[in-house]
Amino acid sequence: MTDAVILLFGATGDLARRKLYPAIYSLYRERKLGDRFAVIGLARRPRTNEQFREDVHDSIKEFARYNVTKDEQWESFAEHFEYMSLDTNNIDAFKELGTMTNRLDTKFEVGGNRLFYLALSPELFGNVSNNLKEGGLLETSGWARLVIEKPFGYDLPSAEKLNAQIRKVFEEKDVYRIDHYLGKEMVQNINVVRFANAFFEPLWNNKYIANIQITLSETVGVEDRGSYYDHSGALRDMGQNHMLQTLAMIAMEPPSRLSPEDIRDEKVKVFRSLRGFQTASEVRSNTVRGQYSSGTMKGNQVPGYRQESSVNPESTTETFFAARVFVDNFRWAGVPFYIRTGKRLPLKTTEVVVEFKNVPNNVYLSKKHKLEPNLLVFRVNPMEGIYFKMNAKQPGSEGTILPISMDFCQSCQIGLNTPEAYERLLYDAARGDSTYFTRWDEVALAWKYVDKIASAWAERTDNLMLYPAGTWGPDQAQQLLSEDGFKWWPVNGQDEGEVAWEMNQK
Amino acid sequence: MTDAVILLFGATGDLARRKLYPAIYSLYRERKLGDRFAVIGLARRPRTNEQFREDVHDSIKEFARYNVTKDEQWESFAEHFEYMSLDTNNIDAFKELGTMTNRLDTKFEVGGNRLFYLALSPELFGNVSNNLKEGGLLETSGWARLVIEKPFGYDLPSAEKLNAQIRKVFEEKDVYRIDHYLGKEMVQNINVVRFANAFFEPLWNNKYIANIQITLSETVGVEDRGSYYDHSGALRDMGQNHMLQTLAMIAMEPPSRLSPEDIRDEKVKVFRSLRGFQTASEVRSNTVRGQYSSGTMKGNQVPGYRQESSVNPESTTETFFAARVFVDNFRWAGVPFYIRTGKRLPLKTTEVVVEFKNVPNNVYLSKKHKLEPNLLVFRVNPMEGIYFKMNAKQPGSEGTILPISMDFCQSCQIGLNTPEAYERLLYDAARGDSTYFTRWDEVALAWKYVDKIASAWAERTDNLMLYPAGTWGPDQAQQLLSEDGFKWWPVNGQDEGEVAWEMNQK
Repeated sequence: MTDAVILLFGATGDLARRKLYPAIYSLYRERKLGDRFAVIGLARRPRTNEQFREDVHDSIKEFARYNVTKDEQWESFAEHFEYMSLDTNNIDAFKELGTMTNRLDTKFEVGGNRLFYLALSPELFGNVSNNLKEGGLLETSGWARLVIEKPFGYDLPSAEKLNAQIRKVFEEKDVYRIDHYLGKEMVQNINVVRFANAFFEPLWNNKYIANIQITLSETVGVEDRGSYYDHSGALRDMGQNHMLQTLAMIAMEPPSRLSPEDIRDEKVKVFRSLRGFQTASEVRSNTVRGQYSSGTMKGNQVPGYRQESSVNPESTTETFFAARVFVDNFRWAGVPFYIRTGKRLPLKTTEVVVEFKNVPNNVYLSKKHKLEPNLLVFRVNPMEGIYFKMNAKQPGSEGTILPISMDFCQSCQIGLNTPEAYERLLYDAARGDSTYFTRWDEVALAWKYVDKIASAWAERTDNLMLYPAGTWGPDQAQQLLSEDGFKWWPVNGQDEGEVAWEMNQK
Repeated sequence: MTDAVILLFGATGDLARRKLYPAIYSLYRERKLGDRFAVIGLARRPRTNEQFREDVHDSIKEFARYNVTKDEQWESFAEHFEYMSLDTNNIDAFKELGTMTNRLDTKFEVGGNRLFYLALSPELFGNVSNNLKEGGLLETSGWARLVIEKPFGYDLPSAEKLNAQIRKVFEEKDVYRIDHYLGKEMVQNINVVRFANAFFEPLWNNKYIANIQITLSETVGVEDRGSYYDHSGALRDMGQNHMLQTLAMIAMEPPSRLSPEDIRDEKVKVFRSLRGFQTASEVRSNTVRGQYSSGTMKGNQVPGYRQESSVNPESTTETFFAARVFVDNFRWAGVPFYIRTGKRLPLKTTEVVVEFKNVPNNVYLSKKHKLEPNLLVFRVNPMEGIYFKMNAKQPGSEGTILPISMDFCQSCQIGLNTPEAYERLLYDAARGDSTYFTRWDEVALAWKYVDKIASAWAERTDNLMLYPAGTWGPDQAQQLLSEDGFKWWPVNGQDEGEVAWEMNQK
């Protein structure tokens, strides 16, 4: 990993605590991060370096995949961390920050590279970017990169405005927009599986694939994010980013080279080929939205969305949505991509199911037997692996045919300790690999697609369906597929008799 | 299973004891065989019914997959078994056998069906068939079927002669030629996997498949079969039947119906498309033959073939052979089928490996990574299952690609008790399903192919290579593939690091 001073805005926040400090520690432990680095924690509240290091220690102890003990190794790691209380409107404070950065740069022989990580509310991005420039922090001999978290805007106009503010200060090539789903092992594996196996590419098109199903289900409710979420909803919170990005990984053409720009070019082509909705009625017939009402999760009664704190008691925000998406190009013409996401669903999972067309109905075996179609399933989260469902002879039977599963369960491997998405992404940002960050044109096209849905939904709310917490969303989400003769395949663990992998203890 | 009197010639022999009585018992226990049957044990040596039933009991106890206890159920099963000492040249004895058969038919309300199972040396087939007719055993109101074991001849002329003798008495449709490999679960599964999965058929041709490897390896030496084997050799003993039959299952076109004749028609088409050798030099460049010399098996010194009892000390019989076979039709043009079999090899296994063509060498991932080709492996024996090798991302790596395996291990399933091949074949013969028996035209074409090899080998023996017991045959067997840029893939358990399935206790 290239040496850098990491300036972490939002150093006392949840993301820093749960993901970023543990990620930095893991990179250090794996020697991907050497000794030439510094981390400056930045937030409003006052904190001494000692207190800050204590916070970092506690977060690593709680969340990191490596154990930490307060030994010499810890001490030499911790001394790279310093803290500064910062008012993001105060340019003088930024100048002071510049001095501090240079001091640490010299102390740890970093060589001038700056990684600005903004774990902040997006309304602050513009101002902070500007003040970084005004404070002189970009005047450095090395590179200066901006890493920002979602949401990148609320719709296309707000995203454009945000982007304009950032781009006044940073070039596109130095802006690293995180979509942490792109950092997930199995999402990255989609590419490898597709392009490193001669077996798959010939089948990866509308001649052989019947449909594709992407599920991103959560069991949690809105938790303490009510005020943000009620403004955003599932479509903007999950659909515009994670789900469309995952779809693009499945649908993209093989890039001509492995370079980040080539890969992102191919994803942009997918976004450009999305069949945009022309009318509100098109939106209504191809999407489903729902909101959870009170219900039962694992035997416990849980409140409905409108009863959650910081949520408008008459809110019409969707906590679930499903959509039928088409990619209008040569490869995918006629193949529906079904996407769904929701809160308070029965299981937490992210899965991509590729359903192959069945053998012809009028010949041979399918006549005598009811055959299930072949499935290739990417299990992204929480289990990681690949699962392939095919038909074989029932052992000992006279020609009875049964679906069997062949699987590669990555997370079942004993002792396997997969890097967290944030480790990978921090590492990539520091070495300048932008493959798994979203480029502006991707973001813009995704908003353009999603805005059509949002504006149709805004017109009338009579199609917002309530679903009890602990169910798989409104019945209409099933109908969306049954209209086409399909069904949602059970996700990992949903049905007994399906393949349910055991999670190993870490 | 259709009711029948089973007349078992060779009732005191090894096959009856190891395979046939256990198979009949399993069918009975699984209620595939009801109460309307009888078994007449026939051999030269004298035996009372009681002694015979005791022999049957002992064989079941030793070899059957169901436990047997001498309770009421056993008694009612055993009373279906009677014995008669028979001189196969004595027509009067056959008449007596006819009387006995009719008596048992009446006693057990069988209804006139006769299954003649000839577990005998092939030279007796003609005579026995003839005497069955002369003795009046074919004059029955039900069907009369002949089940015969390999070898069916020694070459095409001898097979034709044998067939003519049999066909004087039985029609082709009533002759059930056993190739017990066709009764094996996973060989039958080749058909199902190919034709019940939309995933495979599009790839099942010379555009996507690089080569196919069929291995049938034994650890045993010639044992007490020296006098037979030294006359036969590996090519005739294994190649003409099991290996070419398995090849046909892989290579055949989809039949238009599931009927036995349609399936066998397709297999015949494969045999007809085998590229026959025109010259001895063609044979020499496409085949390898070997004979084991003394060596070490699991730490024990074992003798060479020429030191085995009943083997000519100057024998040039091959105990190993490998061949490069081509199927000259639209589907398979240019795809080599490599077959190999041998005695005293390091592992006992039967496997079919389908090696797919690799991703193009000049684009994308294969440039940055050395990619292994995709493999689909049918494990026939002793492990049963399907194994698929593909490429995926090494967990946690930055783009390192590794082969992973996805597998369906049928024999690993706890409590699974797969029928033996002989159970299946007896059951099929009794209900008249000839799918997995070899038809005369198949046998004849296979001999025609094999005879070319055998006669070229007979001309000169200088290409007979000795290989030490416990090795994978002569080096030339490796060269056969490396000439084409391929290699034999390790079979199950051969290499550490490869997928090695554990066998469950039955």
